Amino acid sequence: MRYELYYWTGIQGRGEFVRLALEDAGADYIDVARERGDNAMLSFLQGMQAGALPFAPPFLKAGRLVIAQTALILAYLGPRLGLVPEGSGAEIYAQQLQQTITDFVAEVHDTHHPLVLSEYYEQQRPAARKRTQAFLDERLPKFLGYFEDVIARGNGRQALSRHSYVDLSLFQLVSGLDYAFPNAMTRMHKRMTRLRALAARIAERPNISAYLQSPRRIAFNEDGIFRHYPELDRAR
Amino acid sequence: MRYELYYWTGIQGRGEFVRLALEDAGADYIDVARERGDNAMLSFLQGMQAGALPFAPPFLKAGRLVIAQTALILAYLGPRLGLVPEGSGAEIYAQQLQQTITDFVAEVHDTHHPLVLSEYYEQQRPAARKRTQAFLDERLPKFLGYFEDVIARGNGRQALSRHSYVDLSLFQLVSGLDYAFPNAMTRMHKRMTRLRALAARIAERPNISAYLQSPRRIAFNEDGIFRHYPELDRAR
Repeated sequence: MRYELYYWTGIQGRGEFVRLALEDAGADYIDVARERGDNAMLSFLQGMQAGALPFAPPFLKAGRLVIAQTALILAYLGPRLGLVPEGSGAEIYAQQLQQTITDFVAEVHDTHHPLVLSEYYEQQRPAARKRTQAFLDERLPKFLGYFEDVIARGNGRQALSRHSYVDLSLFQLVSGLDYAFPNAMTRMHKRMTRLRALAARIAERPNISAYLQSPRRIAFNEDGIFRHYPELDRAR
Repeated sequence: MRYELYYWTGIQGRGEFVRLALEDAGADYIDVARERGDNAMLSFLQGMQAGALPFAPPFLKAGRLVIAQTALILAYLGPRLGLVPEGSGAEIYAQQLQQTITDFVAEVHDTHHPLVLSEYYEQQRPAARKRTQAFLDERLPKFLGYFEDVIARGNGRQALSRHSYVDLSLFQLVSGLDYAFPNAMTRMHKRMTRLRALAARIAERPNISAYLQSPRRIAFNEDGIFRHYPELDRAR
């Protein structure tokens, strides 16, 4: 099966969570928009193609299936790429964690866009500062602490395996947060030792390591979800 | 199977999407917190119970499984309660729509809490007005228009059936938006005829009709996700 991934060119964005799974598994896939331009997605978004109607990218075409929503794409790919432990309990737990990552990513996005999605960050900077401060005070420690607890827990037959799409997404989350909020993340260091170990392990996986060094890995930038605006980060 | 639903007392919130599915199907369930108080949830959230660790309510206990995240709970219950069409394509499409509803609900929440989750609405009213204006201008028409298109499309074997957990959630979404933004929703009326028809059909289902008239259906209020603050709505 040759998968077709549809996501904006120029940013990692939500598509990157899917891309990491495809890359890690060495799956056969085409990054459609990067090969043909962002317009390649439009006919799907405008309802001109068969199959499910996506609300937004990323979406995956797998044979005749069209699947949107990042967490759902990973739920679909997980068993097919060997990226989720076997057993329905483990699959459900993995998907629960992934949907929680989705929530977290939306909150990261809103740090720089707290008021109006269609306006620039620069047009909502005071609000962004306020929202980011609350995010760094309350939400960042809560979410990272939760994932630390999940890793620490490793509970019996429902535990995640040593490798899953969730691990890949947690790696991406930590990488993005390190880029966006380096000072805040330095301060979190001692409280996230398990996540740090996980991220280091993922970065060393051969396919991921090769991918990260390839031109396919676009650098984080200020058009994406994880943006580095020094004025929003903690003081050094 | 007697399901145990864990969700805050006193509000409909995200738990209501699960409750509607259980009620519509006439499932055997206990609304645990309502019977034993909010504290009944704490031991799960604090990791004192076996199974998956929830990040937040709602979560469902089904035998030994603990399942959090609203959309995922519905993905689990759907086939068991006859609330999703058969076939993997239809199940995936239903879940895609449900995860999109999750995103929409988060945006509805942020209209009254754009900056700091842990502070009161009254402490962030100017920002709430700005965010709500953008929400009513851009996001509400985009999301409702999307679901109108999905219903209109009814595409072949991937179409949703005449009834699913997605329909129940769309009913809840329309009900909540009618409560929160009555003027804005009146203006949307002609652009959402299919959603209106769907919501009317759901309200007439015997189990739903009985539920809505029962004391189990808590009224919408200003502690929940859908809040009515007249100053945030459109002018009449």
